[in-house]
Amino acid sequence: MKRSLLLTTGLAIALGAGTALAQVKPEIMVKQRQAAMTLQAKYLGGMVPMAQGKVPFRADVVAYNASLLDALSRMPWDGFAESTKDAKSAALPAIWNEPAKFKQAQDNFHNAVDALVRASKGGDEAAMKSAIGGVGKACGGCHENFRQKQ
Amino acid sequence: MKRSLLLTTGLAIALGAGTALAQVKPEIMVKQRQAAMTLQAKYLGGMVPMAQGKVPFRADVVAYNASLLDALSRMPWDGFAESTKDAKSAALPAIWNEPAKFKQAQDNFHNAVDALVRASKGGDEAAMKSAIGGVGKACGGCHENFRQKQ
Repeated sequence: MKRSLLLTTGLAIALGAGTALAQVKPEIMVKQRQAAMTLQAKYLGGMVPMAQGKVPFRADVVAYNASLLDALSRMPWDGFAESTKDAKSAALPAIWNEPAKFKQAQDNFHNAVDALVRASKGGDEAAMKSAIGGVGKACGGCHENFRQKQ
Repeated sequence: MKRSLLLTTGLAIALGAGTALAQVKPEIMVKQRQAAMTLQAKYLGGMVPMAQGKVPFRADVVAYNASLLDALSRMPWDGFAESTKDAKSAALPAIWNEPAKFKQAQDNFHNAVDALVRASKGGDEAAMKSAIGGVGKACGGCHENFRQKQ
C-alpha cells in the first residue's frame, strides 16, 4: 500500500520531471527506457545464477542488487510516451492500445521487485531465491505481450 | 564517512556481483556503463533547467531525481574493467593508465550527488540549485579527462 502510494507519487513526479516531456525527442526517450532495461538485466542477471545454484549464494549481493533494481524499476515507464509510438524500437503497439494491461504488467514487476527487497532483508536464502525467480517471471510476463520477440 | 564506507562496500559487492565479471563480454559491459551514463543524464537533465531558472523549481522533483541519481552513481564503474580497454567506446586510455585519478573523479561525482541528496532533504532552494550545479560540474570534470571530446 505504502509502495503503491510511493509509486504513484513517483510517477506523478516523473511525468513532470523538470524538462517538459514533450521537449525530449522520441529517440532519446527510447534510448533512456532501453538503458533502464539494460541495467535491470545487469542486476537481475547478477542474481539469477545464484538462484539457480550455479554460483555461490551471496546475500549481500542480493541485497545490493535488489536496492538498485528498486530504483531502476521506476525509470523506464515515462519513456513509453505516445510521442515514441513511431520511433524505432522493439515496443509493440499493445503498449498504447492496452494501457491498463501495460500498467498491470508494470505493477506486477514493481510488486516482484518489492518482494525481493523485502526478502533480501529477511535473511532467508530460499525466500530470496524464490523472489529472484519472481522478478524474472515479471520481466518475461511484460515482454511476452509488449515487446517484439527477440 | 558513512557514504565512503557504503561506496567501498558497494564496490566490493559490485566487483563480485553474481556473475563473474570475466564472463561478461566487453561490449555488454560497455553497453551497461553507457546505459548508466544515459540515465544519469536523464535525471540530472531534468533538474538543470530548474537550477538555471528556466522552468519552475520543484523541490519534489529534485528529491526524486536525486534519489535515483544516488543509485545510478553506483552503476557505471565496474563496467570500466580492463577487459573493455579495446572495446569501441568514447573511453580514453587514461581510465586505465591513471586509475587513482579516475577513482578521484568518481569520488568527486559521488560526493556531489551526496551533497545534492542532503540538500534535497534540507528544503533550501538556493542550496539545491547550487548542488545541482555541483553534480553537473563533477560530470564534466570526469568527461574532461576520461572521455573523448564529443
